[in-house]
Amino acid sequence: MVPVPVVGIHHIGIVVENLDEAIEAYQKLGLTFDGVKDFPHTRVALFHGGEGHVELFEPKDPESDLGRYLRERGGIHHVAYAVRDIRTALAQLEQEGFELIHREPVIGLHGFPVAFIHPRSCHRVLTELVEVPEGEGH
Amino acid sequence: MVPVPVVGIHHIGIVVENLDEAIEAYQKLGLTFDGVKDFPHTRVALFHGGEGHVELFEPKDPESDLGRYLRERGGIHHVAYAVRDIRTALAQLEQEGFELIHREPVIGLHGFPVAFIHPRSCHRVLTELVEVPEGEGH
Repeated sequence: MVPVPVVGIHHIGIVVENLDEAIEAYQKLGLTFDGVKDFPHTRVALFHGGEGHVELFEPKDPESDLGRYLRERGGIHHVAYAVRDIRTALAQLEQEGFELIHREPVIGLHGFPVAFIHPRSCHRVLTELVEVPEGEGH
Repeated sequence: MVPVPVVGIHHIGIVVENLDEAIEAYQKLGLTFDGVKDFPHTRVALFHGGEGHVELFEPKDPESDLGRYLRERGGIHHVAYAVRDIRTALAQLEQEGFELIHREPVIGLHGFPVAFIHPRSCHRVLTELVEVPEGEGH
């Protein structure tokens, strides 16, 4: 079975304690700040550098999944790879025995279909696929 | 001070327990396998998807830095951002108070100058800069 090819690293997600301080630091690192999105359980700052995106998450609730992640570990939370056909990729991965968190794609922060694969299947890395249409970069 | 811009996510580094199993899994994920490099303390499998690279490290020595990382945490170990001028970037970051692991670049796995920034300065993310010349992608 020929896998659906990864066409790029779309983004990494990072869990931070203090979003405002982190926004300042990541701008100094040379990333371009694209704004903050507010959700019930988290605030997310979006950045990009070339075609790579960085998402900084500040959990609002210490008992949420991200809140626990911050307490126990912090730092890089997941990586997202760009593909052109997420449904075929998910079907193939399931057939190969990968443990899918989403069997059907959901809409992600960038407006594209996304799905997560369990870290147990990816050598302890929470892995996301993002379907980026051709011509939209990756 | 205008930061030296990040032009892309060059790679992520992942620490794994069993490199051969991980090579198989990451090929099934859709990444292209580029080979294994052998070093005294680690074996590294190189992959790419589009312009994004993935490096899987299997530590040989459980008491090495990577060995301890695997025991305590595992998974994504660092992210590397591509820049065009690493010396200026490092000088600026040092002036901004970032804690540099390398004040002078060293040559990385891909043959380009690289330098690491301490996770303390990057909200718990071990961060690498890679100087990728224009025209070599990022």
